[in-house]
Amino acid sequence: MTRNEITEQIIAARLAKGLSWQQLADAIDRPVVWTTSALLGQQPIPADLGKVLVEMLGLDESIVPVLAAPPMRGGLPTAVPTDPTIYRFYEALQVYGPALKELIHEQFGDGIMSAINFSVDLQKKSHPSGDRVVVTFDGKFLPYEWVSGEG
Amino acid sequence: MTRNEITEQIIAARLAKGLSWQQLADAIDRPVVWTTSALLGQQPIPADLGKVLVEMLGLDESIVPVLAAPPMRGGLPTAVPTDPTIYRFYEALQVYGPALKELIHEQFGDGIMSAINFSVDLQKKSHPSGDRVVVTFDGKFLPYEWVSGEG
Amino acid sequence: MTRNEITEQIIAARLAKGLSWQQLADAIDRPVVWTTSALLGQQPIPADLGKVLVEMLGLDESIVPVLAAPPMRGGLPTAVPTDPTIYRFYEALQVYGPALKELIHEQFGDGIMSAINFSVDLQKKSHPSGDRVVVTFDGKFLPYEWVSGEG
Amino acid sequence: MTRNEITEQIIAARLAKGLSWQQLADAIDRPVVWTTSALLGQQPIPADLGKVLVEMLGLDESIVPVLAAPPMRGGLPTAVPTDPTIYRFYEALQVYGPALKELIHEQFGDGIMSAINFSVDLQKKSHPSGDRVVVTFDGKFLPYEWVSGEG
Amino acid sequence: MTRNEITEQIIAARLAKGLSWQQLADAIDRPVVWTTSALLGQQPIPADLGKVLVEMLGLDESIVPVLAAPPMRGGLPTAVPTDPTIYRFYEALQVYGPALKELIHEQFGDGIMSAINFSVDLQKKSHPSGDRVVVTFDGKFLPYEWVSGEG
Amino acid sequence: MTRNEITEQIIAARLAKGLSWQQLADAIDRPVVWTTSALLGQQPIPADLGKVLVEMLGLDESIVPVLAAPPMRGGLPTAVPTDPTIYRFYEALQVYGPALKELIHEQFGDGIMSAINFSVDLQKKSHPSGDRVVVTFDGKFLPYEWVSGEG
Amino acid sequence: MTRNEITEQIIAARLAKGLSWQQLADAIDRPVVWTTSALLGQQPIPADLGKVLVEMLGLDESIVPVLAAPPMRGGLPTAVPTDPTIYRFYEALQVYGPALKELIHEQFGDGIMSAINFSVDLQKKSHPSGDRVVVTFDGKFLPYEWVSGEG
Amino acid sequence: MTRNEITEQIIAARLAKGLSWQQLADAIDRPVVWTTSALLGQQPIPADLGKVLVEMLGLDESIVPVLAAPPMRGGLPTAVPTDPTIYRFYEALQVYGPALKELIHEQFGDGIMSAINFSVDLQKKSHPSGDRVVVTFDGKFLPYEWVSGEG
Amino acid sequence: MTRNEITEQIIAARLAKGLSWQQLADAIDRPVVWTTSALLGQQPIPADLGKVLVEMLGLDESIVPVLAAPPMRGGLPTAVPTDPTIYRFYEALQVYGPALKELIHEQFGDGIMSAINFSVDLQKKSHPSGDRVVVTFDGKFLPYEWVSGEG
Amino acid sequence: MTRNEITEQIIAARLAKGLSWQQLADAIDRPVVWTTSALLGQQPIPADLGKVLVEMLGLDESIVPVLAAPPMRGGLPTAVPTDPTIYRFYEALQVYGPALKELIHEQFGDGIMSAINFSVDLQKKSHPSGDRVVVTFDGKFLPYEWVSGEG
Repeated sequence: MTRNEITEQIIAARLAKGLSWQQLADAIDRPVVWTTSALLGQQPIPADLGKVLVEMLGLDESIVPVLAAPPMRGGLPTAVPTDPTIYRFYEALQVYGPALKELIHEQFGDGIMSAINFSVDLQKKSHPSGDRVVVTFDGKFLPYEWVSGEG
Repeated sequence: MTRNEITEQIIAARLAKGLSWQQLADAIDRPVVWTTSALLGQQPIPADLGKVLVEMLGLDESIVPVLAAPPMRGGLPTAVPTDPTIYRFYEALQVYGPALKELIHEQFGDGIMSAINFSVDLQKKSHPSGDRVVVTFDGKFLPYEWVSGEG
Repeated sequence: MTRNEITEQIIAARLAKGLSWQQLADAIDRPVVWTTSALLGQQPIPADLGKVLVEMLGLDESIVPVLAAPPMRGGLPTAVPTDPTIYRFYEALQVYGPALKELIHEQFGDGIMSAINFSVDLQKKSHPSGDRVVVTFDGKFLPYEWVSGEG
Repeated sequence: MTRNEITEQIIAARLAKGLSWQQLADAIDRPVVWTTSALLGQQPIPADLGKVLVEMLGLDESIVPVLAAPPMRGGLPTAVPTDPTIYRFYEALQVYGPALKELIHEQFGDGIMSAINFSVDLQKKSHPSGDRVVVTFDGKFLPYEWVSGEG
Repeated sequence: MTRNEITEQIIAARLAKGLSWQQLADAIDRPVVWTTSALLGQQPIPADLGKVLVEMLGLDESIVPVLAAPPMRGGLPTAVPTDPTIYRFYEALQVYGPALKELIHEQFGDGIMSAINFSVDLQKKSHPSGDRVVVTFDGKFLPYEWVSGEG
Repeated sequence: MTRNEITEQIIAARLAKGLSWQQLADAIDRPVVWTTSALLGQQPIPADLGKVLVEMLGLDESIVPVLAAPPMRGGLPTAVPTDPTIYRFYEALQVYGPALKELIHEQFGDGIMSAINFSVDLQKKSHPSGDRVVVTFDGKFLPYEWVSGEG
Repeated sequence: MTRNEITEQIIAARLAKGLSWQQLADAIDRPVVWTTSALLGQQPIPADLGKVLVEMLGLDESIVPVLAAPPMRGGLPTAVPTDPTIYRFYEALQVYGPALKELIHEQFGDGIMSAINFSVDLQKKSHPSGDRVVVTFDGKFLPYEWVSGEG
Repeated sequence: MTRNEITEQIIAARLAKGLSWQQLADAIDRPVVWTTSALLGQQPIPADLGKVLVEMLGLDESIVPVLAAPPMRGGLPTAVPTDPTIYRFYEALQVYGPALKELIHEQFGDGIMSAINFSVDLQKKSHPSGDRVVVTFDGKFLPYEWVSGEG
Repeated sequence: MTRNEITEQIIAARLAKGLSWQQLADAIDRPVVWTTSALLGQQPIPADLGKVLVEMLGLDESIVPVLAAPPMRGGLPTAVPTDPTIYRFYEALQVYGPALKELIHEQFGDGIMSAINFSVDLQKKSHPSGDRVVVTFDGKFLPYEWVSGEG
Repeated sequence: MTRNEITEQIIAARLAKGLSWQQLADAIDRPVVWTTSALLGQQPIPADLGKVLVEMLGLDESIVPVLAAPPMRGGLPTAVPTDPTIYRFYEALQVYGPALKELIHEQFGDGIMSAINFSVDLQKKSHPSGDRVVVTFDGKFLPYEWVSGEG
């Protein structure tokens, strides 16, 4: 079974069992964004955690080593996402991406926000005009550096 | 002159004058991400603010009404960005986008994070392993609602 | 079974049973455009309504929780639709889209028509030169607002 | 001068003169969506109307015959629009397009909504939860018919 | 079974039975281009005709209602066709398409050749230098008209 | 001056002079579809004819040799045309292309309709339900033949 | 079984049986490039030859009529080939294609090299610096001619 | 001036001067396919040859060093060529490319035909049914070899 | 079974057996990059080595001849890779590709680094700021040479 | 002047002055790959170094601050490069990219080779069968780490 097929099984099993992503994250004591991303095929899941999740979901234990391998990442079926909930993040990049680039350079120098040494957080915040989805991308600043290994 | 041509002029003038984005934002007392995005052609700039900016940058006042019109938004030259600093945000969508979708639905119900009633913040945070770029997307939750106007 | 596979089953079962979309909508007392869109995989269907529909269509009740989950939206198999009936809406965007943008800004200010707080209506209207398809897109105006959550 | 270059001139002149699209439409007594679409390069403008508009905008009269010719239509710079205000219409097609197709067939038979014998209307409607953008696409139903010319 | 799967079955059954498209068209007394297009999944086939065809091809009668439903049209596997026989028509569009547009406008006014009120004919014509494929596209002229439904 | 720039000049000059395509074709005694296609940059125009056309259009005679050279053909700005008048031909290919392929093979054998030994004709035909655009593609049948040159 | 599925079977069977393409071509006494292309799904294979090949490969005789039908041609899985052996031919087109066009026009006039009345030959030639792959494309020159069928 | 701008100048100057590609090739005693490809911007032209060509074409001598630099190669304006004369070579790849790959492997082993150690020849050959364009791609066979540099 | 299906089996079997790529490479005494690439479907595997690998992985010996055939190469599912670990190599091409081209020409003359007479090495190097991934592409320089085969 | 326009000027000036990339790199005492990449628009050039380069190339000093700003990176005009010298690196990714991913994970764990903390080296190495281009990509290993900033 490929990782993609396993992901489909996980999605179906979660709904059939009525488990929330939060319950699955709590069961392995990992952040919920990371756990959800991992169960959707974007992160390797260490075997001990994988066993817990596989059991909760009622799946076959033979998939544990596949879950534990670093997957071929990339979870969008098209280069520009069509789902509205995901698209809004892409839209924000179209509108604010060049500005974020300029300000990263102004405040940090030439470089990037790492997407590897990185975490994502999702919070519900209140506001008089309605609840807000607050998503924080938090990545280490990596300056462009011209470095070579030794020996 | 089109808005795109004006944006090119702004970019060149800012560098020639040695002005920072923060200085420009401070001059009009608006958030720096918004101001930078606006000067890069992604937001209308009210005429009173536009006059201040145009003067600071030494550009022709005749562009003020063009700056004040809602622009054709979309600041990426290709659907998948090639610049590494911007690409990392796209990569984060590839890896975490479907997870964010699932969690927005789990915590808020069926709907989206608005990218219109929305703000973006960029902060430098410290960490023992190095400074961090912390970008917060903060959008109103909009539930899918089947509503029709009256009359 | 994935949502896509369920959608294929629904399409086949509806034709085999000879049910109209209107009959399905009436059975659950929801607008017919919404119901059709939902059965084609674009909306979550609350479990109580899903049970009614699944029974009418003679499908397996185990799909009810999958129908109840917010789906990965996006119902066009290609970015530019090839089907003539759907294409005409895309063509209208090519010809009238920029004008609609300008007039939304002129009449409402900078912002958008929401596609989330939104309804679609389809009517048959008469005209001496032949019946007309009248489709109304009705979305809440959302002004660009720079807002942040509290606390 | 090409039609595209003329369109750029019109956009700039309208902002410089501070004219609204409605004022331009009123001056030629044509619907405002049609007028805006025409001035954005998507419709031929009869020479008598073209003269009025060209004079109001302070442009050179030599462009009148170019405005009067049927243009190469298609006003979106990319196949999938990036501007949020226009994108929402594309999104509505992704979510409701297949449903509209099904219901046109159910209510009218096999055929399409014409985008040629067609009008678009934009209205502001009120609603307790905020003003609404109501866009109506109104096209003649064209049934699939296998017809050949005579002689 | 989806319409695409049925189309594959039809293609295989026709070859296995050694039936020509003309024989299939004759059996239902419909034009051969229409019949072929319909059997390749591009037209709804009325149930009485569908029954005849299904029986001739030795397929299961349960597919008759699927054949009778208006299909999701679009028969090219790629936007630019790769098959040389089909490609030549696309090439003709690249070379003569803009000229046809100009001449339709010159001879008929602003508008289009309908592809809905439309027929296609294929003839073999003789010529001293070899037989010729003569394909006639015959569509009703539809003038651009700004019309709205009543009431 | 490149051929593309010359084409833009021709389009502008024709409108400014108020010449019809038919008048231009009559002046050189060539079919109007061919002449229009040639003036739109898709055919080489023999120098003697080119001189006539250039004079009529009031352009510089130095462009005659550029008009006489076989051009880089391909007159659509995008792979899938956006202009509705041209798009309908593309749509016809999506719906009838595979059927035409099958019938060319059934009636002629394996091969193609040439788009080189080829002519296109556009006629207005009457019909009780309205005038019709009748476009005839007439190309030599070329059978697949495995032939090699001699010597 | 579709032609694509048959092609997959042929590829597998040839390797399992250890047959060379040359042996298959010799068995039916046809050129090896043609035979290979045909077995890879790009040419119809006359039934008498098809029977010989199907028997050699140990496949089911029921596929003979499918092999005998003109296939939907186009053997590259992506528009730009990724396989290095095939890519080099595409690269040659990028570098030499426009030159070949110019020289065909200079030596033959306006027209094309037919890819239908056409053969391809592959030879191994020696050279002091190493063996060479020599591929000859040999197509009839087809001049652009404006011809119509009679009657 | 960029190489692309120089190429446009060369194309225009050649037509204005009435020079054939063969004359240009003869003047520098190089193969005509190579010379044409080089003048179309696909090969560096040694300065001594460049001077001869620039003088013949009446261009400015300052472009000689630009002609002498290895250019950014790739002469097709779109990934899939639209010009029919060039397209036929692409079509040949679609139909015969996978077969050529198989036969290169069968006759030479795993590897490619080099497009660098390579020449192209264009010949006119006669045939009773009409002249033929014969294009020969002649490239060194390069076997896949796993080699590393020393030291 | 196709090569792609075999690759999927290999990936699954390797994880299930807990074998490292290095162990597989050691078993056949070939470089680990080559071995991994081959097992991922990008190189033919000689039958004697294939047997060893198939046995280690517990797969069916009938796949050995498929593994031994030169595969259709190209291992990326999209033209621009989405997986971050692979993307970084693509990003390096975007940033350094044109510079590498210039320097290959400056140091070697007009030509390329072969990707056929080629090896890749991956090393872990240490550095005070952390371990480094050092990937070496080592290809024979191939100068552009206009050579033809003899006889 | 935009950065792209400056890059075009640099390319032209370097050829006109007959300067090598190595000479330019030596003048500012920076690695030659970095210097070439920077002059081709892919790196910011500190003002003191920029002044030296601008003077050597005879360009206007006013471009120094534009050179000093972090540029919008991405130096390939198409997503898949067409130039053969650059393409070979893309081809290597198609053939070896997935293998490099697997081995980075096997030797380092889940993570990437940084393309930011990174250097590229180009060497000429000798080999009995001919000189070799040896390109080394040397990037810091970045493990996937879920880290958040403090405070």
